[in-house]
This record gives sequence, structure tokens and C-alpha cells, in this order.
Amino acid sequence: MVEEKADEILSEADHAHVAFLVVGDPFGATTHTDLVVRAKKMAIEVKVVHNASVMNAIGVCGLQLYRYGETVSIPFFTETWRPDSFYEKIQRNLSMGLHTLCLLDIRVKEPTLESLCRGRKAYEPPRYMTINTAIEQLLEIVQAREEPAYTEDTECVGLARLGSEDQMIVAGTMKQLQMVDFGAPLHCLVITGQTHPVEEEMLYFYRCRTSIQH
Amino acid sequence: MVEEKADEILSEADHAHVAFLVVGDPFGATTHTDLVVRAKKMAIEVKVVHNASVMNAIGVCGLQLYRYGETVSIPFFTETWRPDSFYEKIQRNLSMGLHTLCLLDIRVKEPTLESLCRGRKAYEPPRYMTINTAIEQLLEIVQAREEPAYTEDTECVGLARLGSEDQMIVAGTMKQLQMVDFGAPLHCLVITGQTHPVEEEMLYFYRCRTSIQH
Repeated sequence: MVEEKADEILSEADHAHVAFLVVGDPFGATTHTDLVVRAKKMAIEVKVVHNASVMNAIGVCGLQLYRYGETVSIPFFTETWRPDSFYEKIQRNLSMGLHTLCLLDIRVKEPTLESLCRGRKAYEPPRYMTINTAIEQLLEIVQAREEPAYTEDTECVGLARLGSEDQMIVAGTMKQLQMVDFGAPLHCLVITGQTHPVEEEMLYFYRCRTSIQH
Repeated sequence: MVEEKADEILSEADHAHVAFLVVGDPFGATTHTDLVVRAKKMAIEVKVVHNASVMNAIGVCGLQLYRYGETVSIPFFTETWRPDSFYEKIQRNLSMGLHTLCLLDIRVKEPTLESLCRGRKAYEPPRYMTINTAIEQLLEIVQAREEPAYTEDTECVGLARLGSEDQMIVAGTMKQLQMVDFGAPLHCLVITGQTHPVEEEMLYFYRCRTSIQH
């Protein structure tokens, strides 16, 4: 993890060139911004090479990038921790007719409960949230609401392995997408706002009847 | 222009591989989505190679990508055409504490008025909106408003030649940025919403006192 290695990266950079490779664009994550801030404070010169990121590659589904509102992250619910702060953001985006990109939780290098107790490092197997789980959680938190911002009939687009040869894109209602097996991670989900004709034309190719789209 | 060449691109693709190179990510512009839609309708296979785009490279200034609202485009005002539909979007973003990425107008291959009259093709020299012009227009449209969403004291970040060796990033109020010479195009502007401490720490390095930041 970057956080653990930051000191090492920065101390090396004092006397040598250090390259730090990331998935996506370096500024997609606060962690990387923090690393740059620390480097700059130490007067270390930082050169950034930008890259494609889910934040713009998501445009492939046909929904226009300038029609997205705030991006949300959906964390894995646990028995005791079921945060729903993303709901309000989705609600706001939908009320303005905007699309919402939902980034789905990734759990890697999570220490096991046992290892935390014993002070030895052992990790849980990595977990990547599927579109199906995301929709399940999204629907769970609107159950108790009187005028939910979305329902199981709300249009969405599910995307798996975005940017790779076997990427999969399916457009449909939440209910429809819940029945789709999107396969290996990473998954992400767009909750569709108001659409324009060109957007609809593109979504047409990804509608549920066609199971896989490259 | 893509629009004029689309037929040619698509007819060639019927019997050969055609590569179409763009600046930024292919789905940053509706035009390219439209080209893909037309290709798919003709059963032409389309492979997309994603790329960095201003939509994510903007993260370099330190404002977090997931804290941006809807992106706006600011067109060149003319004597008779002064559209301000972007104002409401900026207002909405600011009211939610979100940052606004303003993409500034590019005029290339604009036919001259004379050539339109005579039916011969002659073009105006290319024009690229500067940050200074953008701020001038932004301030002009709030002059008549009683409770403007922003004023000349509103914090912004101006970015020129993003992603290139000589990129320039300056953070400051609209009034401050209006005095800065950002040099050659392309320029873009972020109107800053509510900031978090990590965002502030990064902006610190780009504050107006330092004239150029690489």
C-alpha cells in the first residue's frame, strides 16, 4: 500500500529518480495527491504522466461525460456498518437529470480480525464488489424511503473490466442488471439520468437482450 | 473536421482497418460517440483505446475528481450572441460545494462571413479562449444579478497546456487570475467549491505569488 511505503519512496527520491506506477490516473485517489504534497514540501520535483481513468473511460457507454454529476463510492455493507451517504448524492444528481458514476468497493490487504488481535500480519482474501451486490445495497437503502430517488425500474449501465479486451457493458433497469453475470472484476455502475437522443442511440447497442458487448 | 469526413472513414472501414486518432479521450466529444454509433449501425467492429483527458488530468491541481459537479463549456461571446446557460450549472455546483471544470471555447475552421456569402471556403484564423477572457465573460454575466453565485473574489484555478512540459497552474481569485499571463493555449479554468485540507495543501503550491508551476 502507498501509505505504508510513502516514507521509503520519498527518502529514495532525495538522491535518485523514483517512478511510481498507478492504475488509472495518478490523481484519481486522494492518497496520491497526498504523496505529491509531501514530495513538494520536501522540494522534490514531481513529474506527472496522466493516463486514462474510469472517470473518463466510462464515456464508452455513450452517456456524455459532461452530463455526469458527482461521483459516488459504494462501500461493502457489514452487519454493523451500513453507510448510505452516497444516497443523497445520487438523489441530487438524478433531480438535476445527471448521470451518477458509482465506484464499487475494493478490499485488498485487509487484515483478518484474528491477526489484528494477535498482532501478526495476515490478510483476508481480496474482495471486489460486483454490480449485483451494488444494486442489492442500493435497493436495500431505498426500501424504507417514502419517495425513493430510484427504484428497481431505474435505468442503469453496468460495466465490467472497462478498457480491456473482454470488457462487458450492459444497459438495463436495476432489476434486469441484477440477473446478469458480469464475470471477473473490476465492475462499476452508472445510474442513468436524463438522456439525449445520441446517448440513447449508443445505449441501444448495450441493451439487456444482448448479453455481452465488446 | 470529423463531421465532414465521417462518410469517408466509415466506407473505408468496410474493407480495411481504419484508425482514428483524437486529442484526449475518444468519448470526450459527442461527435465521436456519433461516429461510433454510425459504425455500429453498419456492423463495423469498433475498438477503443482510452487516453488521459482534461476530465481527469485536471486532478493535478489537487482538487479531488469526485468533488466536481457538472462540467461546463464557455463559448466566445459575440456582439449578438451572449449565452449564459453555464451560469446555472456553476451556481448549482457551488451551492453543493462542488468544483466546476470550465472548458474554454476553441474556434478552428470557422468560415469567414465573406466566404459564407460568396460560397467559397475561406477560414478565420484559429481562436482559443484564454483564462482571462473566460473570467471577463463570467464576471460580465453576474453584473446584473442580485445574489451572484460568484464574484471577482471567488477562488479559482487556472491551468494552461495541461499535461505538457511547460504546463502552468495558478490558484487565486478571479480578480488575481485575470492579471496572469498564462501564455499559449490550451487553457481551462476550475471554479473552486468547498475544499478539504488535502486539497488546500496542494493548492498552496499553486497560489498566485508563485508565477509559474511545472
